[in-house]
Amino acid sequence: MAQLVLEGLEDHGTRVISESVPTKIERDGEQLKVEWTSKEGGTSQETFDTVLMAVGRVPETSQLGLRDVGVELDKGGFVVGGHSDDHERTSVPNVYAVGDVLKDRPELTPVAIRAGRLLARRLFGGATEQMDYDKVPTTVFTPVEYSCVGLSEEVALQKHGEDNIEVYHGFYTPLEYTVPERSAKQCYVKLITEREEPQTVYGIHYMGPNAGEVMQGFAVALRCGVTRDKLLTTVGIHPTSAETVMALHITKRSGLDPTITGC
Amino acid sequence: MAQLVLEGLEDHGTRVISESVPTKIERDGEQLKVEWTSKEGGTSQETFDTVLMAVGRVPETSQLGLRDVGVELDKGGFVVGGHSDDHERTSVPNVYAVGDVLKDRPELTPVAIRAGRLLARRLFGGATEQMDYDKVPTTVFTPVEYSCVGLSEEVALQKHGEDNIEVYHGFYTPLEYTVPERSAKQCYVKLITEREEPQTVYGIHYMGPNAGEVMQGFAVALRCGVTRDKLLTTVGIHPTSAETVMALHITKRSGLDPTITGC
Repeated sequence: MAQLVLEGLEDHGTRVISESVPTKIERDGEQLKVEWTSKEGGTSQETFDTVLMAVGRVPETSQLGLRDVGVELDKGGFVVGGHSDDHERTSVPNVYAVGDVLKDRPELTPVAIRAGRLLARRLFGGATEQMDYDKVPTTVFTPVEYSCVGLSEEVALQKHGEDNIEVYHGFYTPLEYTVPERSAKQCYVKLITEREEPQTVYGIHYMGPNAGEVMQGFAVALRCGVTRDKLLTTVGIHPTSAETVMALHITKRSGLDPTITGC
Repeated sequence: MAQLVLEGLEDHGTRVISESVPTKIERDGEQLKVEWTSKEGGTSQETFDTVLMAVGRVPETSQLGLRDVGVELDKGGFVVGGHSDDHERTSVPNVYAVGDVLKDRPELTPVAIRAGRLLARRLFGGATEQMDYDKVPTTVFTPVEYSCVGLSEEVALQKHGEDNIEVYHGFYTPLEYTVPERSAKQCYVKLITEREEPQTVYGIHYMGPNAGEVMQGFAVALRCGVTRDKLLTTVGIHPTSAETVMALHITKRSGLDPTITGC
């Protein structure tokens, strides 16, 4: 899926310089000269109109005195959670952490909100429900969008073993691409299920227009424990791209061409 | 919802002449003169460049000799199905009907395909599953799309009674409408649920961009028996319009303003 996102960006006209780290930005008249080092160690430079730095975030935990009370942090300052069977409990039993400061949790506002609500209900409302971090849908808003919910193929294989996983996939053409003969080569759907009945769905991965809008409902279905049979027995909305998910039948294991043709 | 579809068409520049029946189309030079009669009986005429007739379909059952073997048809030639507890059984026990010829069934190709497959499995495969005509998603592909799955508010009220139904609703603004300050006054979502716990979802109605793409996954969730709690505990994909469905909390019963504000 990552490869398709990258190809989509390149086909859209973006030049991607991989495995390189910018080391210097200098003013050069009205422009900005950027210097970077490649993985192999070589240095390059080029001048640009605009530089946008999207370098992620660092958890601002240093001022909280967490180490003074014994809360375990990793090198990057992230709180190590998941002590005992409570996802948000830290190494100090009565200290909890929620949101982006938690190590290895998705940095998404709706996740922090949900996890915080569930924690409050457990602490003060007698509830037991834990945040289900495995079923958080998310979207990469590139020109061709990528959205997913559930496990990646790699994690599913690792967790359940190759013999217990089925991967259905297909390249499809959105109807709105056909008249302008726009390339649909990144439009691809992958469904990861249990291999045996009832074929519980573990993950759905979707590249195509409006992937985020498409995925939201499927994320609800995953929360409801959707099986492949429930997908197959839901009537498709024709003509949409989302109906492709209902119709996937080529397994990766079969080695057959996963291109979906026809109406 | 129908009113919003109509308003959407009108705001898009379409002049709608309601409750009128065209009675004559005549050539008028390069153009076409159309005459119509209104509900009140008055006659009007106007000349147009193009006339497109979208008058629906009639079931072509007359040549099949169905009446000769005693299969019940209605006046319009539709097959009356639902005899015994089999949705597709006609009044003659060993004759079945599938698809658009069936009276009061949605005229949608994917429905006919699905109903036919399920019937074949029941007749020859020992299966028992019936087609679930109440959970067929469908879309009206108007400029502002309307898509729905499950019961309409009217049918839900009639079937379950006003005291047993809760209707959540909201007017939302798609992110892509905000910068060009495009009117979002038809962007509206309605959720119909059981009033008591577990608040099983009976129907979802969605007006907005890409409504068909949004609804497909929710249709799967409805097949999985989704409850309001499952909706509330699914993480929203931000920023999408589909996440609005997760966040609906204003009931129609409350009389509160259902306009959703903020991010």
